[in-house]
Amino acid sequence: MLERFKVPEKDRVYVTVEEMRPATESIFLAMGLSDEDAALSTDVLMKNDLRGVETHGVSNMLRNYVQLYRDGKLNPTPTITIERESDATAVMNGGSGIGLHVAPKAMDLAIEKAREFGMGSVCVHNVGHMGGSGYHAMRAADQDMIGVAMTTSGSLSTVPTFGAEARLGTNPIAYAAPAGSMPDFVFDVGTSQIAGNKVRLVERIGADILPGWLAMPDGTPIMEEGPLPSDHHMLPIGGIREQGSHKGYGFGAVIDILGSTLTGIGPGFLALTPGFHLTAYNVDSFTDLAKFKSDMDDFLTALVETPPAEGHDRVVYAGLLEAEETEKRMVDGIPYHREVIGWFKKIEAELKLDFSFT
Amino acid sequence: MLERFKVPEKDRVYVTVEEMRPATESIFLAMGLSDEDAALSTDVLMKNDLRGVETHGVSNMLRNYVQLYRDGKLNPTPTITIERESDATAVMNGGSGIGLHVAPKAMDLAIEKAREFGMGSVCVHNVGHMGGSGYHAMRAADQDMIGVAMTTSGSLSTVPTFGAEARLGTNPIAYAAPAGSMPDFVFDVGTSQIAGNKVRLVERIGADILPGWLAMPDGTPIMEEGPLPSDHHMLPIGGIREQGSHKGYGFGAVIDILGSTLTGIGPGFLALTPGFHLTAYNVDSFTDLAKFKSDMDDFLTALVETPPAEGHDRVVYAGLLEAEETEKRMVDGIPYHREVIGWFKKIEAELKLDFSFT
Repeated sequence: MLERFKVPEKDRVYVTVEEMRPATESIFLAMGLSDEDAALSTDVLMKNDLRGVETHGVSNMLRNYVQLYRDGKLNPTPTITIERESDATAVMNGGSGIGLHVAPKAMDLAIEKAREFGMGSVCVHNVGHMGGSGYHAMRAADQDMIGVAMTTSGSLSTVPTFGAEARLGTNPIAYAAPAGSMPDFVFDVGTSQIAGNKVRLVERIGADILPGWLAMPDGTPIMEEGPLPSDHHMLPIGGIREQGSHKGYGFGAVIDILGSTLTGIGPGFLALTPGFHLTAYNVDSFTDLAKFKSDMDDFLTALVETPPAEGHDRVVYAGLLEAEETEKRMVDGIPYHREVIGWFKKIEAELKLDFSFT
Repeated sequence: MLERFKVPEKDRVYVTVEEMRPATESIFLAMGLSDEDAALSTDVLMKNDLRGVETHGVSNMLRNYVQLYRDGKLNPTPTITIERESDATAVMNGGSGIGLHVAPKAMDLAIEKAREFGMGSVCVHNVGHMGGSGYHAMRAADQDMIGVAMTTSGSLSTVPTFGAEARLGTNPIAYAAPAGSMPDFVFDVGTSQIAGNKVRLVERIGADILPGWLAMPDGTPIMEEGPLPSDHHMLPIGGIREQGSHKGYGFGAVIDILGSTLTGIGPGFLALTPGFHLTAYNVDSFTDLAKFKSDMDDFLTALVETPPAEGHDRVVYAGLLEAEETEKRMVDGIPYHREVIGWFKKIEAELKLDFSFT
């Protein structure tokens, strides 16, 4: 994550995962989720916070989830059904449950299909926020498979290249592939130039935005560094056409098609509700698993050992910094913004819970 | 395509597809390909030229292919075998044949699997150049499926973000999805900032490169517009970290994993030979095909009808300009650089062929 997204030192409150996990779980339980689903939903947020993906941890999202449960917009005890199925594919109705615990079940079905047929893809609709796509892709990698997870955003934020109105969400996608001794490859990005939650983070932290990150309401890309304008559009990866924004726009459209339209709920801009697409490739159906993992180690090692360009310390790969951050945060705790901890204290009182934060 | 990549008016020679197709086919036949494979290989190049994807038409590639056949590096009559197979997946040995005609056969197998099991993925190794990924993805769309085609480059060109040595190729990927009355969605891009063949095109045309397209040999991104340095690296989509190059780098790595390592030939930087991955999703296994196509029309229409930002005429989507260009070029002919036509005249004499170009 770029330096500007980190919680400033002076605002940091460190909480261990051992303290934050039961606190978060008790909130989900108070919302009416089953023990299993509360644990699963909490696990998604904890893994994100440990990996340093705080945009998709408890800081940004948990209060929204609580509000959605209170407003009756999420079903804490959803009935999940399969609406269409073939050997290697399925379409799942999430019963208005949150994606945090519905997506892992969809991925588990894709994994099961991949084990039997070589690969599997499961689409999901009538479902809430996925909680970041990385976690769900990693679920397949943990089973020695390559996992792919994508979701439409359920809202409009991102303009097409040259466009003045948003037609896409930030439409994220993640791929995870198992390695041997190296930390797994986990690539997890929005197809907008910066993640939607990063804009909220910039707002909270008061950081400046960089050129090519956002567009003015009339679609003109903002090409000067400066404060976040309250009214803006997101730009696709690349920012402007000359820097490849048509490629980011195209990937965003692909996710719209595979996540939303293929799921049967129409294009994202009409559905305005998330659609997921989760895929698992059984490595062993393609090649020797042990060889694959050792090849992955060679690949990832070569990337890390690339001589760095002038002014840079090291070259990394997707998933490496997050693995390092996890090790660090397991020891030091997770640095939350004091405002986030303030919210936890408030909800603790409101719901009559006992977080026993030290 | 950006204006700078187009053949300058004064250097254009228009040749109809009816003239170019038999000329190209006779060259492949002279190299020893079967009638079927010569026709298929020619079809790939013709569709690319008609679509305005001249980076992957006869201009850049055909002379290389001829050289590879002459050097015995491509087998004109390959024996294609399946090395590993599950219901929905297969790994194919291309028998040292060119990807132009091997990839369509791999995609046809993926389509067959998708028809039976809902989806299918076929990896290919021991194979030559794919000839652009768009054509092969479109093959699935023509069968009412969503097609995905990707390939590693078989050579190193692209640095990881912050890297000073190339570890990846330009690793292209294409997705095609069928629409109803609108031209199909066909997204076809390299994961480097600009395609490798575009660099050759810039060289031939003498155009300048834009900031963030390439890096100096020490890995420093070139951030000034100017002439093409003879020694350089490619940068991933986004160009620099602040503009999302870690995302382009990640997509490039994904294609390396799915195209090369999963195929069993190890990572691209060690294999140094192309690896393909072709996938077909049977739309009807997920949702109603007619509804899907009509939803696609709604999606693509909404994209095209997006109000353009100041200074732009229109918003397009991936595949639209190429469909328009095809219509135009079917009538006007294909504008080749006179230097390309010079090569055709030379090879015509060498191989004692008769192209009867008017």
